[in-house]
Amino acid sequence: MRKQEVSALLIGRFQPFHIGHLEVIKTISRQCDRLIVGIGSAQLSHTFENPFTAGERHLMINRALHDEGLDNYFLVPMVDINRYAVWVAHVQSLVPPFQDVYTNNPLTRRLFEEAGYNVRSAPLFNREVYSGSEIRKRIISGKEWEHLVPKGVAETIIEVGGDQRLRDLTREHSYEVTI
Amino acid sequence: MRKQEVSALLIGRFQPFHIGHLEVIKTISRQCDRLIVGIGSAQLSHTFENPFTAGERHLMINRALHDEGLDNYFLVPMVDINRYAVWVAHVQSLVPPFQDVYTNNPLTRRLFEEAGYNVRSAPLFNREVYSGSEIRKRIISGKEWEHLVPKGVAETIIEVGGDQRLRDLTREHSYEVTI
Amino acid sequence: MRKQEVSALLIGRFQPFHIGHLEVIKTISRQCDRLIVGIGSAQLSHTFENPFTAGERHLMINRALHDEGLDNYFLVPMVDINRYAVWVAHVQSLVPPFQDVYTNNPLTRRLFEEAGYNVRSAPLFNREVYSGSEIRKRIISGKEWEHLVPKGVAETIIEVGGDQRLRDLTREHSYEVTI
Amino acid sequence: MRKQEVSALLIGRFQPFHIGHLEVIKTISRQCDRLIVGIGSAQLSHTFENPFTAGERHLMINRALHDEGLDNYFLVPMVDINRYAVWVAHVQSLVPPFQDVYTNNPLTRRLFEEAGYNVRSAPLFNREVYSGSEIRKRIISGKEWEHLVPKGVAETIIEVGGDQRLRDLTREHSYEVTI
Amino acid sequence: MRKQEVSALLIGRFQPFHIGHLEVIKTISRQCDRLIVGIGSAQLSHTFENPFTAGERHLMINRALHDEGLDNYFLVPMVDINRYAVWVAHVQSLVPPFQDVYTNNPLTRRLFEEAGYNVRSAPLFNREVYSGSEIRKRIISGKEWEHLVPKGVAETIIEVGGDQRLRDLTREHSYEVTI
Amino acid sequence: MRKQEVSALLIGRFQPFHIGHLEVIKTISRQCDRLIVGIGSAQLSHTFENPFTAGERHLMINRALHDEGLDNYFLVPMVDINRYAVWVAHVQSLVPPFQDVYTNNPLTRRLFEEAGYNVRSAPLFNREVYSGSEIRKRIISGKEWEHLVPKGVAETIIEVGGDQRLRDLTREHSYEVTI
Repeated sequence: MRKQEVSALLIGRFQPFHIGHLEVIKTISRQCDRLIVGIGSAQLSHTFENPFTAGERHLMINRALHDEGLDNYFLVPMVDINRYAVWVAHVQSLVPPFQDVYTNNPLTRRLFEEAGYNVRSAPLFNREVYSGSEIRKRIISGKEWEHLVPKGVAETIIEVGGDQRLRDLTREHSYEVTI
Repeated sequence: MRKQEVSALLIGRFQPFHIGHLEVIKTISRQCDRLIVGIGSAQLSHTFENPFTAGERHLMINRALHDEGLDNYFLVPMVDINRYAVWVAHVQSLVPPFQDVYTNNPLTRRLFEEAGYNVRSAPLFNREVYSGSEIRKRIISGKEWEHLVPKGVAETIIEVGGDQRLRDLTREHSYEVTI
Repeated sequence: MRKQEVSALLIGRFQPFHIGHLEVIKTISRQCDRLIVGIGSAQLSHTFENPFTAGERHLMINRALHDEGLDNYFLVPMVDINRYAVWVAHVQSLVPPFQDVYTNNPLTRRLFEEAGYNVRSAPLFNREVYSGSEIRKRIISGKEWEHLVPKGVAETIIEVGGDQRLRDLTREHSYEVTI
Repeated sequence: MRKQEVSALLIGRFQPFHIGHLEVIKTISRQCDRLIVGIGSAQLSHTFENPFTAGERHLMINRALHDEGLDNYFLVPMVDINRYAVWVAHVQSLVPPFQDVYTNNPLTRRLFEEAGYNVRSAPLFNREVYSGSEIRKRIISGKEWEHLVPKGVAETIIEVGGDQRLRDLTREHSYEVTI
Repeated sequence: MRKQEVSALLIGRFQPFHIGHLEVIKTISRQCDRLIVGIGSAQLSHTFENPFTAGERHLMINRALHDEGLDNYFLVPMVDINRYAVWVAHVQSLVPPFQDVYTNNPLTRRLFEEAGYNVRSAPLFNREVYSGSEIRKRIISGKEWEHLVPKGVAETIIEVGGDQRLRDLTREHSYEVTI
Repeated sequence: MRKQEVSALLIGRFQPFHIGHLEVIKTISRQCDRLIVGIGSAQLSHTFENPFTAGERHLMINRALHDEGLDNYFLVPMVDINRYAVWVAHVQSLVPPFQDVYTNNPLTRRLFEEAGYNVRSAPLFNREVYSGSEIRKRIISGKEWEHLVPKGVAETIIEVGGDQRLRDLTREHSYEVTI
C-alpha cells in the first residue's frame, strides 16, 4: 500500500511569483511529502493588483519550481468565493487532502483553525525586498526587476507580454469608456 | 377566518444585535401585529465589519427577543443581491406579506417608496452609545461591551467564540496569503 | 448561564407544508430543545414543482406550528448552492449551531455524516396520503385538498392566491414567449 | 412636451427569428407607439436549442424589421435570471417603461398580471409551419429552410456560419471530452 | 447580397447620456456603417454613481439619437462580468459582429488589442463641461443641468423622476438599515 | 532562452480517471512537449454522475501519471461556466498557452475551431470496456472494478471512501428532505 503522505497547503496570489515565494516553498517542501500551492484569486487578471491570468501564473511557478529540482508539489488555481463561512470547504473540494496549512494572514489562520487544521506561520524571507507590489511598480516605471524573480518567471512575463500589459494598464482598473 | 394582520418590515445587519436595536423593535412591534426582522448581508461573516454568521445572529436576536417576552416576529436571513432594481422583489419573495417598512436609510426608503410601500422612520435610540461599530471596537480592544447588548446576545457571542474571532481578525479582511 | 440546548435540523421544500410534515415536526420537536426548520430551495417559486415563495412558506409553516402550540423552532429560508462539497458549510453558516440532523435523503445523510454529524431517519407519516406533489395535483384539478394541510396553511394559500396561481401555471415552467 | 407613448413588450428567444415572429410583430407594432422586443436567454448559444448568440439574433431581427420599414422598436437582450419572483423587476430594469405585455405563455402571463400589467395574447401566425425548432431541424438535415425566415435572417445565418455550426453540434450539448 | 457593413463599438455607462457623448457618436457614426453603443454596467442603478436603470438609459439615448436624425445604431445593455480575461468574449456574444473599437480607457484598449481588434481613440468633446459626474452633482444641488444633455435626455430624466431619485439618494449607497 | 514548447490541451471529467484515459494521455503526451489536462466540472461532486471532488480527481490522476513516469503535464481544475460563447476565453485564462486541442466532442471541437485552434481527435482506447459510467455502476453493484483503473486511482478511491460514497448516493441527487 502507498505510504501515508503528509501534505501541506500554501495559498498566494503570486502576482508575480518571486524569490521570496520560492524560498518559502523550498523551506516548507522539506517539511512535508507534498506541497499544495493554491493560486488564489484565479479569476482575476489585467489589473495593476492582479496583472497575470491564473494560467500565466501556473506556467511561471511551474518553471521556477522545476528549475529548482522540486517535483513534490501540486499547483491548483482557486477562484474566490466571497463567503468566508464556506471558504475552507471550497478549498478542501479543490485540492487533495492536506494536514498542515502555512499562512501569515490572520483570517486564513482563523478560518482553518475553526475547521480544526494545524496552522503554521510561513517563514518570511526578506519581505521588504521581495514583494509583488514592488515588482509591479518597477516593471511599470522601467526599473530593473528581473533579479527579484526566478529566471523562469522573468521568461514567462516577457513571453506573454506581461511587462507591456502592466505598463498599458497603469493603475486604471475600470473598463468603462468614460468619454 | 384568520383576522387580517398588519406586518411591518425592519432590516439590519445586527453585527451584533444591541440594545438600540432592541428598543426600536420593542417600539415598532407595538405598532403592528407581526414584525419581520430581516438579517441583512446574510452571506457575510468573519470580517471586522461583519464578524458573525447569519445563523449566529439568528440565535442572538431570538434569545434577546424571547427574553423580552416578544413572540410576534419573524427572523429572516437575507443574502445581498447587488442589483438595487430587483432588491424589493427579492425581499418580497423571502418574507411574508407586509404593509409597512421602517428605515432611516435613504436608498431603502426610496426603493420601497418606488414600489408603493408606506415607509416610516425607525425611532432611533441613543445612537452614539449603541452602535455595532463601537461594540466591535470595544471587543477588540478589550474594553467592556456586554452592557451594550442584551444578555442573550452576550451569551451567544461568548458561546460561539465571537469575541476571540474578532480579536483574531483585527481589521484584516483578505484571506490571501501575502507571504 | 444559559443551559446547553440540543438543537436538531430538518430541511424540506414544503411545497406546500402538509400534515405529514407537521406530524414529523411534532415528533422531532419532543426530542430536542430547539428544532431548526430549513425552507429549502428558497429562491424558487411560480412553477408546478415549487409554486410558493419562501416568504409564503414561512408564513404557512409559522401559522401551522403556532396553532399546534409549538414555539421551540427556528424557520430559516435556504437558497440552493449547487456545489454539494460546500453545502454543509453553507447550511452551518445560515442556522444556529445544531447537533442532530433528521433526513431520509441519502445525499443529505452522506454529506452531514462526512461532516461528522449525527444523522437520524425522519419518522415518515402516511407518505402516500400526505405528499406535496399529490396536493399540488389536487389543487390544479379542483379536487379537495384542504384536509391534507393544517388549517393555517390552507388559509395562507387562499390568501396569497396560491390555488389560482397553480392552476394558471399548469405544469408549464418556461417564461419564454414561444410565439 | 413629448407626447405620451404607449409601449408594448414582447419577449422571445428567436432561435432563429422567423416569419411567424415577423407577422406577430407587424400586428402588435400597429397597436402601440413603440414595441420593445426582448431577446430572451441572451446568455445562451452554441446548442441545438439555442444555436445563435444574442448579438447574432440582434442583427438578424434588426435586418428583418428594417427591411419591413419598421422603426418604432427597441431590441433588448435579456439574460435569464433563474428566480421567477424577481423576474418582472429584472425585465423592468432592462427596458424602457411599458404598458402592455403580449404573451401566450402561462407563466409570463401570471407573473406580469401579479405585477399589475395588462397582458394580451400574442396573435399566433401559422404556428405549425413557422417554428424555431422545425427550422433548426431543417438546417441540420439539409432541407430547405430559407423560405421560413425573413431574407435578412437567412443572410445573417449564412454570414455567421450558423447553418454549419448547427450541423456541427448535432444535438450534443455537453462540452465535456468524454474520451 | 447585402453589402459588407463596417460596424464600430463604443461602450459607456451614460449616467446620464450628455452632449459630449452625443458629439462623439455623431463623429464616429460618420466613419462606419453601423455604430454599436454598449450601455455598460447595465445591472446597476439607484446609486449616486449609477442612478439610472439600463432601460431608462436605453430610452434617453434612443430619443437623443433619433432627434438628431441618426438611425444607423444598435443600443445594447451589457451587464458587468467581473473577469477581464473573458470580457471581450462576453461583449462579442452580446453584439453583432464589429470591426473597430473606440475607447480612451487603457484597459478596454488593452483587452481589445490582445483580442486582435483595431482600437481607436474616441474624439473627446469638451470633457470638463460635459461630464456625467458634474451633471449628477448639479441635479443634486439644484443647479441648472438641462443644457448639458440632449432634450430627449432631460425629458426622460424628468419623466422617470430621476432628478428626485438622485436627490433622495444623496450619495448614500448602502441599503442596510443601520438603526 | 527557453526553447519554444508545444503544449496540447485535453479536458475530461475523469469520474473516475481510468485506463482508457491513461492510454490516450500516454499517446498524446508523446506528440507535445507539455500536456495540459483540464479537470472539467470541477465544482461538482457527490452525485452518481460526478462522485469525486476536483481535489480527489487531482490526486488520482497525479498518482496514475507519476506511476507511469510521466512528468510533462499540468493538471488544472476547471469550474463550468454555463455560457459557451465565453467558454474558450475562460479556459484560456486558466491554463498556460497551448497550441493543440484534443477532443471527440462536437461542441468542444466547434468552439475551439471558431477561436482558431488546431483541433485533433483524441485516439479512443477500447471505449466499451473503459468507461466512467460503467466503472461507477460496478462500484455500486459490488462488481470488480479495480482492474479498469490505474493502481493509483484505485488506491485514492479507497482512501477517500469513494466506493462507499457512491453506494450511499445510489443515483439520488437531490439534497431535499422529502419527508
